[in-house]
Amino acid sequence: MKATIFQGPGRIEVCEVPDPVIQKADEAVVKISYTTICGSDLWFYRGLSPLEAGSHIGHEFVGTVEAVGDRVNKIRVGDLVVAPFVISDGTCPECRAGMTRFCRHGRFWGTGGYDGGQGEKARLPMADGTLRVVPRSNIDDHMMRALLPLSDVLSTGHHAAVCAEVGRGSTVAVIGDGAVGLCAVAASKRLGASRIFLISTHEDRAKIGIRFGATDIISARSDEAIRQVKALTNDLGVDCGLECVGTADAWNTTLGMVRIGGNVGFVGVPHDVPDISVSKLFNNGIGVKGSGASAGHYIPELMQDVLSGKLDVSDIFTKTIPLSDIAEGYRDMNERKEIKVLVRP
Amino acid sequence: MKATIFQGPGRIEVCEVPDPVIQKADEAVVKISYTTICGSDLWFYRGLSPLEAGSHIGHEFVGTVEAVGDRVNKIRVGDLVVAPFVISDGTCPECRAGMTRFCRHGRFWGTGGYDGGQGEKARLPMADGTLRVVPRSNIDDHMMRALLPLSDVLSTGHHAAVCAEVGRGSTVAVIGDGAVGLCAVAASKRLGASRIFLISTHEDRAKIGIRFGATDIISARSDEAIRQVKALTNDLGVDCGLECVGTADAWNTTLGMVRIGGNVGFVGVPHDVPDISVSKLFNNGIGVKGSGASAGHYIPELMQDVLSGKLDVSDIFTKTIPLSDIAEGYRDMNERKEIKVLVRP
Repeated sequence: MKATIFQGPGRIEVCEVPDPVIQKADEAVVKISYTTICGSDLWFYRGLSPLEAGSHIGHEFVGTVEAVGDRVNKIRVGDLVVAPFVISDGTCPECRAGMTRFCRHGRFWGTGGYDGGQGEKARLPMADGTLRVVPRSNIDDHMMRALLPLSDVLSTGHHAAVCAEVGRGSTVAVIGDGAVGLCAVAASKRLGASRIFLISTHEDRAKIGIRFGATDIISARSDEAIRQVKALTNDLGVDCGLECVGTADAWNTTLGMVRIGGNVGFVGVPHDVPDISVSKLFNNGIGVKGSGASAGHYIPELMQDVLSGKLDVSDIFTKTIPLSDIAEGYRDMNERKEIKVLVRP
Repeated sequence: MKATIFQGPGRIEVCEVPDPVIQKADEAVVKISYTTICGSDLWFYRGLSPLEAGSHIGHEFVGTVEAVGDRVNKIRVGDLVVAPFVISDGTCPECRAGMTRFCRHGRFWGTGGYDGGQGEKARLPMADGTLRVVPRSNIDDHMMRALLPLSDVLSTGHHAAVCAEVGRGSTVAVIGDGAVGLCAVAASKRLGASRIFLISTHEDRAKIGIRFGATDIISARSDEAIRQVKALTNDLGVDCGLECVGTADAWNTTLGMVRIGGNVGFVGVPHDVPDISVSKLFNNGIGVKGSGASAGHYIPELMQDVLSGKLDVSDIFTKTIPLSDIAEGYRDMNERKEIKVLVRP
């Protein structure tokens, strides 16, 4: 089969590799229908995070189960499944508490001799704990595109909203107009937010944000964006700030927009974000909570609304390419030409 | 009338001062039935926080309204009222968002020529926004003692539980066995916690904690306390950690006990607590939120349960003294001989 191999920073290749076959009783092999490139894959691509040359890459896909091991009970051959971006056992104390991202025996796709998600097929361990079955047949192409973001970006945007306690009537500011930020807008709308500010200086992304539920586009950055949001909220600030970038500037913007006693949900992997003063938090009563999302935990709930058509973020896929062109997809996303590239193996 | 005056660290005196009379239209004068000494009063007493000699002191009381200004509409002469520990207007954006502690025009008792709470009477501004009326007559002596903690410690313990998202079935650890920690135990039980660990090495305080709803007393500190709580929670940790001290050690203990994805509610005023790494928070998904409590916001809800007898933390008052003996009350609390001293003007 063909699979995407990371050959070093800037070097993405599609290679011929052996077809995966079940080797252990907890494994499954999935034939991949759609996969995609993640903002976090770009860290490796840019050489900002280490990854061994020759590694299988990719961690978001939908596909059909082709084979399962003897001890796999919940997943069956023929099931259409969504793959959360972390492999988890589903039975450890953290998994049982809903924190599948932090599974004690969890692992990332493409490690330990297992496949990544950017290929024709993927073999994975702990199939029962990891994969989420789509409980419906006759899924058309559009629905496939709507289901794929559950793997990561939609679950992550939802997690930002959950961490910030978005609920009915909340006022929300989303900082970051990438795929995760746009999904955070859709998730906030789904959770009942009454007003959603999207901070975006890119017209094309802002347009998608409005389609997803943003009520106000703030086309400014940093202090000027804070000033505008305060002016539009009776000088109070928003109840919930969703930090979807991970930089010091995004954090300052978020903390500056959230009202006293409000909440920050953060899902941008922190890069050089300064430590937070406990006294400062105490003096404005702002809560902060964030992490990688436990996609496996969120998918069943979110999938219901995706299947019913209520939740559709497929517009984040601004380009569709065959697997053979995936190196071009990395280039386009690295240059921010596309929001997210859909890949068809 | 008689009022308690702070004459400098370690010097508390009851002095004769002019009887308060209404001077502005938003004011009220309250005849105080019961007042008490707060842990935070001891910072001034110990010289750890600055306070001008000659200041009126005290910020917790219940009493009967004796006079009101022309523009006071909600509060009437004869009302039995509870005084939140911060004076607030009730109309600014923060007050309307429920954050009365952070009122834009808020002030502390005993400042700007107004009275403190440790006296026979108190004149205050913004009476309508500040005072909370007890909606019942024939309040007996025991009920007075049960109402007084609403002013501060019960609202503060409740705030810790709210910030940590204590709810039905939560597992909770309370760090701190002072009046606030004990009230946090009672508040957690009220909110439906199924298991409440109280970290306490003082047998008398632990006994009160059990009466308030603690299911487990952890008679250890720091790493050993963390080890015991983990062992008793299937090696997971608790959902909610309530930090009611404000020291670096209490923070370490709290963060060490809370499970991945759990929440810390903190109400101990931070003293030399190290800054928190955002990456560390991201890597364990623990939320942190805390501040001084918006007692004025919480009192109406909590008061219902106090009046019905469901919520009674009057056991925190381990000694009752007349106002003339208040200097002795400060000594007893400073030496931790008493948990909280009730003062009868």
